[in-house]
Amino acid sequence: MVISIGQYLLDRLKDYGVAHVFGVPGDYNLGFLDLIEDDPNLEWIGNCNELNASYATDGYARIRPMSALLTTFGVGELSAINGVAGSYAESVPVVKIVGMPSRSVSENRRFVHHTLGDGEFMRFYAMYQGVSVAQTILNKQNAKSEIDRVLAECALHKKPVYIGIPSDVPSIQIEVSSPMLYKPKSDKKTLNAFVEAVKKCIKTYKSFIALADYEVNRHHLNQELHDFIEATNLPIASLSMGKGVFSEQHPNFIGVYNGILSDDRVTNAIKESDCTILVGVKLTDFLTAGFRYICEEPIPRIEIHPLYSKIGEEVYSDILMQDVLKKLSSLNFKSKIPPKEPKSKLPLEGKLTQAQFFQVIEEHLQPNNVLIAETGTSFFGAVDVSLPRGTSFIGQPLWGSIGYTFGALLGSALADRKRRNVLLIGDGSFQLTGQELSTMLRENITPIIILINNDGYTVERCIHGPERKYNDINMWHYTKLVEAFDVHLHRKPLTFKANTAESLSKALEQAYKHPDKLAFIEVEMARDDAPTLLKKLGEISAEQNKY
Amino acid sequence: MVISIGQYLLDRLKDYGVAHVFGVPGDYNLGFLDLIEDDPNLEWIGNCNELNASYATDGYARIRPMSALLTTFGVGELSAINGVAGSYAESVPVVKIVGMPSRSVSENRRFVHHTLGDGEFMRFYAMYQGVSVAQTILNKQNAKSEIDRVLAECALHKKPVYIGIPSDVPSIQIEVSSPMLYKPKSDKKTLNAFVEAVKKCIKTYKSFIALADYEVNRHHLNQELHDFIEATNLPIASLSMGKGVFSEQHPNFIGVYNGILSDDRVTNAIKESDCTILVGVKLTDFLTAGFRYICEEPIPRIEIHPLYSKIGEEVYSDILMQDVLKKLSSLNFKSKIPPKEPKSKLPLEGKLTQAQFFQVIEEHLQPNNVLIAETGTSFFGAVDVSLPRGTSFIGQPLWGSIGYTFGALLGSALADRKRRNVLLIGDGSFQLTGQELSTMLRENITPIIILINNDGYTVERCIHGPERKYNDINMWHYTKLVEAFDVHLHRKPLTFKANTAESLSKALEQAYKHPDKLAFIEVEMARDDAPTLLKKLGEISAEQNKY
Repeated sequence: MVISIGQYLLDRLKDYGVAHVFGVPGDYNLGFLDLIEDDPNLEWIGNCNELNASYATDGYARIRPMSALLTTFGVGELSAINGVAGSYAESVPVVKIVGMPSRSVSENRRFVHHTLGDGEFMRFYAMYQGVSVAQTILNKQNAKSEIDRVLAECALHKKPVYIGIPSDVPSIQIEVSSPMLYKPKSDKKTLNAFVEAVKKCIKTYKSFIALADYEVNRHHLNQELHDFIEATNLPIASLSMGKGVFSEQHPNFIGVYNGILSDDRVTNAIKESDCTILVGVKLTDFLTAGFRYICEEPIPRIEIHPLYSKIGEEVYSDILMQDVLKKLSSLNFKSKIPPKEPKSKLPLEGKLTQAQFFQVIEEHLQPNNVLIAETGTSFFGAVDVSLPRGTSFIGQPLWGSIGYTFGALLGSALADRKRRNVLLIGDGSFQLTGQELSTMLRENITPIIILINNDGYTVERCIHGPERKYNDINMWHYTKLVEAFDVHLHRKPLTFKANTAESLSKALEQAYKHPDKLAFIEVEMARDDAPTLLKKLGEISAEQNKY
Repeated sequence: MVISIGQYLLDRLKDYGVAHVFGVPGDYNLGFLDLIEDDPNLEWIGNCNELNASYATDGYARIRPMSALLTTFGVGELSAINGVAGSYAESVPVVKIVGMPSRSVSENRRFVHHTLGDGEFMRFYAMYQGVSVAQTILNKQNAKSEIDRVLAECALHKKPVYIGIPSDVPSIQIEVSSPMLYKPKSDKKTLNAFVEAVKKCIKTYKSFIALADYEVNRHHLNQELHDFIEATNLPIASLSMGKGVFSEQHPNFIGVYNGILSDDRVTNAIKESDCTILVGVKLTDFLTAGFRYICEEPIPRIEIHPLYSKIGEEVYSDILMQDVLKKLSSLNFKSKIPPKEPKSKLPLEGKLTQAQFFQVIEEHLQPNNVLIAETGTSFFGAVDVSLPRGTSFIGQPLWGSIGYTFGALLGSALADRKRRNVLLIGDGSFQLTGQELSTMLRENITPIIILINNDGYTVERCIHGPERKYNDINMWHYTKLVEAFDVHLHRKPLTFKANTAESLSKALEQAYKHPDKLAFIEVEMARDDAPTLLKKLGEISAEQNKY
């Protein structure tokens, strides 16, 4: 089949589940943009800026299998690099596409706009090597095999890849045969060796517990994890980065693990077990109370990752998580599920507190929602919110880029228009990326946006400088912005202000009653109030910064 | 003297003319921020986001001798890298300071937040090597000499430098002696050789013309250039990147050079001369009609750069522009200044056109203003605006990052509160960085912001896809934003809408009458109207992208 290079790339992206492309136009990508606009199965989502676009692309690929981000050369790709680095850190399969100057321009080392004016065209590619697992620049000779290879790497590792397309390349016609795909397969011998080693652990240790995290989400192995837990009857906790990885309504789910800041149920379960099975886990500071573990867990431990597993320091390469979980399902892990204590309810009177706030959110969340929580009071409070069946959770506690979730919301909401997205974000974070509200209104997505107005960077105040001016921000009329960011407002959004549990409840009721409307709820809370987990983590972070 | 490392860095920055530090707080830089907030001679300007901060830092250092930008590690510095790359491309002396995780954290390769979770702490430093002339990470042993060295490199090259400060370092006390400074000096032998070579040119060629550009601005050698032109009576044109480098009211000034798109006066002057003296010039696509030169200029040519000069391909290293200009002032260059034709005035009736718009701007601009023009209709129209005495011009035609000028305005206005700043920016560009209006209102700066509302990316439409949807943007209520971005509004800004020359004139009159108030003027113009220069450059760019 003869096809243009640009169209071949788009067709392969669609094969991988991409239906929207995010980004900002620039003169080196306009030719490629024509192809996107003309493709009836793709939608172009023009963002306000490239950083917001990169966050949207990340959010999209946390719901869908892959996503694509298009910018222009130099200026555009560098504005997006923070977002792509976040996708790399937290393993999100993003395809970063860059429209580059034409080959005639770069081969003549011309001093053209969007370059550093030094005839050098590979410097930004080199920067992206630090935050992507595969990179390529397309031409007539390599386009078919390089597109296949790079997308396969993205799908395999669930990490960003980088594709440069010089402006003269998208329209070049090439001959293509059937696409190359990776078909990952476990090495049988290693898999058996691993199972034998786990059997030895079962003889050695007397009680097991499972901890699951984000890698399971990214590789869409939640059903396999569910089957494994049901078969083995292990107690399971999630880490906050992978919150929602396992149904929080399931009887085997015991809570979210937070190192020494875990609640009693998780703490006791960890204390009572002598071997931990980590499924798709990376132990980072914000997930472990700054590496303050409950006992000497996580050792001894069994680690199961998407493409390899580990026992202690022994690595078993080339065995897939889905095969490992299946094989281990037939083993008899000794374990004990600690009893569930009913959550005590707070009284809901007076000015709204952080603790009340998250209780109200929990009462209103509905099955199959997507709950998105900005790193800060939102994330560390949401960790304790019990998720209804089928609810996905999006946060970014490793990379922790402030403002991320507002862009991510655009992506996650477009990834599945049938699911209601609920965003929790602070005022400080919102100010970084807030103009993307305009794109949300234009695209008629209908999330519930809950803006926590507590007058500044509360997460920073918890760490250092609670009374410092640098943690202040300018106060905005947030609900006025909703009107200012869209002249047309085809579907007038709902706006609310709330400063008590009751007014917040009423606003949420209204918002849920109108699934066809964007709802923007500004919630007022005290400047120095914060979820307990964040307060304690703040102290630990302050300590960590000193030495 | 014993002093903390953080304070020593701040003291040296002040020596170089820094009075404001831009950026966003993050937990790895809070300790250093304490020192900034406590320093009575420094002001912390917290920005809405790091990209905006990097643009502000760039704008500041186009007016002042140096500027400083502080972010946190990873997330913050990557959000700012596009702005710093622009400073590198266009030679702006920016000190990029990064609060890093403590040395104990990095030496233990901890998986902490704001990292890629791989124990690697030098990856972002490596990225910045591509866009800075010197880099360092401070510790007790190296702080004094590294701070001295890196700032001296910044001042010498007028390009960004990168300073990493681990969070445990700012408070460490060190013993310091007097600061090390570079004292650049010309090599006398080379300087004499160069002068002899120029004398030979004077014998060979019969008529000379000078072209001056941005390097003169960045090295603050405008007076030296002025003296050189007065002494030699050469005709002088500027390039658009360095517009304002030489007084546009001076009788020797003949206009702005734009390759084959230059006006008749410049074109004839170039045709009549057979040797061009380039003072601080870099010939890039947008300055030369895509490298379409009028004759076979720029060869033969004499090039004078800040630290070296050239005749043809012969390089004379280590001779300073100021010494070269002084030496050449005594030579007798043959030249002819072409007569000035009076500019024809357009009739000012009907809906406002782009051509009328720039005529009205020219009529209202006042001496010593700072005129800032976003790459797009604004920049390419402003090129033809005749600047009153003492007016500075800021644009970014090489790096050309969309939205840049809105951040830059914050910086340039704070750099000298006595000068009125006038910004011309399109709606598409404004949407990338518009929230920085909030910081402007908080800081009580009083620029005149002229927003050209022409419903999308007109600069892109000129290049490709005039009817494409991807060049559309969402329409905002721009003047409503002014109210939304600041609850307090200590000094209520003036807002205007204009769609005729008359209404624009009236708005400008009011704005100039109130130097103590920010003025926001939304100007409506037709979607596909554009300055002639941009239309022609658009066609050339489209051609350049095809091959």
